[in-house]
Amino acid sequence: MSPAEKAERLRALHHGDQPLILVNVWDVAGAKIVEELGFPAAATASAAISASLGFEDNEEIGREEMLAVVKRITSAVDIPVTADLEAGYGPTVADAVATARGAIDAGAVGLNFEDSAHKDTSVLYDAELQGKRIKAIHDVGVQLSVPLVINARTDVFFRTELPEEEKYRESIRRAKIYLKAGADCIYVLGPTDENMIARLVNAIPAPVNMLALPDAPPIARMAELGVKRISFGPRPMRLAMTAFREAAQRVRDLGTFP
Amino acid sequence: MSPAEKAERLRALHHGDQPLILVNVWDVAGAKIVEELGFPAAATASAAISASLGFEDNEEIGREEMLAVVKRITSAVDIPVTADLEAGYGPTVADAVATARGAIDAGAVGLNFEDSAHKDTSVLYDAELQGKRIKAIHDVGVQLSVPLVINARTDVFFRTELPEEEKYRESIRRAKIYLKAGADCIYVLGPTDENMIARLVNAIPAPVNMLALPDAPPIARMAELGVKRISFGPRPMRLAMTAFREAAQRVRDLGTFP
Repeated sequence: MSPAEKAERLRALHHGDQPLILVNVWDVAGAKIVEELGFPAAATASAAISASLGFEDNEEIGREEMLAVVKRITSAVDIPVTADLEAGYGPTVADAVATARGAIDAGAVGLNFEDSAHKDTSVLYDAELQGKRIKAIHDVGVQLSVPLVINARTDVFFRTELPEEEKYRESIRRAKIYLKAGADCIYVLGPTDENMIARLVNAIPAPVNMLALPDAPPIARMAELGVKRISFGPRPMRLAMTAFREAAQRVRDLGTFP
Repeated sequence: MSPAEKAERLRALHHGDQPLILVNVWDVAGAKIVEELGFPAAATASAAISASLGFEDNEEIGREEMLAVVKRITSAVDIPVTADLEAGYGPTVADAVATARGAIDAGAVGLNFEDSAHKDTSVLYDAELQGKRIKAIHDVGVQLSVPLVINARTDVFFRTELPEEEKYRESIRRAKIYLKAGADCIYVLGPTDENMIARLVNAIPAPVNMLALPDAPPIARMAELGVKRISFGPRPMRLAMTAFREAAQRVRDLGTFP
């Protein structure tokens, strides 16, 4: 498949009867495993990649090092790869453009792009500016003939000072701006309440991505609610490293390897 | 601790009552875990790092990319780090020098250095040449005032065409050449038979490293036999990625995350 075909394949996976399930990866070994297991696409998790390389989350890693990991992964698997590229590694439209070009150069055909501010998740970018940044990413995809699948993430639910209803309304308002700008999917990070998830899915006129948090509804229930993309963020990496930790503890305490 | 102090600390760990136990790591997250668990040193595993980055084992990764991973790890932990640097990424004495300099630049204070030929483990370097290469590494440590702890690995037991007694004799012959050249520890890769391990430990006048293979004696037994350094190679990484694989399979087959 050409990059353009991979992008369209990834896009189509958001419109099936069943949701697109993405067990997020952080290195080539993990990406090969999800491909071997028959998953139709691979998605990176920025927090996992950052932890693996020794960076704090939230863009400390920088665009170049993040895209170097993405490139290794896309070089190793044939399935479409969507990259978690945080908030684009800089606040401007030009930063978004550089990130979109870099993503295509790295072989990604989709990206997560969030509205939390660069290195400060307590602040959200202005919705209109974020819309312009999404439009710019979309236009890069058109120009370079790789129609990037844009998973526009809004972190309104992180703004804990807001009442729930305000979070809901602001998420919908932002979703509509982001969709108009060219987003393919809206990723509302944070809600785990079934009713809230159902309301978001019903109000957003596009596929919705939900993070499978431990207290979120089961995957089958999220599918029933109409969620079209379900991802795991850094949980798979944490699970793997917990297994490592337990093995190391066992060596230390009992002198045996599992 | 200065690099020189870390090197001497790592060296001393080979001469305690109990063996030095190294649960090998392949990224920063793992190195932080072994430090948190109180292990006195961290060791990388080249096969694990290569797999994580999408390279075949046996030096396909190259010196520069391997040392970049080592540098990330040494920057993230305070304990001494010993790096598995395969056969030095090239066959010459100059290659060994470049690898030793690079290891010190990357913050490592010890290294594994093996006699399997570059990209071809079916061939061993001539023992005298390998001795010269070890001497050159030792001399770099002296020149740069970071007395690298050299864990000289011999892969004679991989030469399956040889009778066991010949493997034993050739390992001892090589061990003595490597020790004379400045090695601190001899890593005989492959044997799992208790009697063979005991014979090697008794015949080699220096600390001996054994790989804790699944069919090797338990750690406590290896300690009784006098093994002074016990490592796990890529097994910890494979264990972590098996946990990842099982989680992804469960998501695929049952729709639940562990």
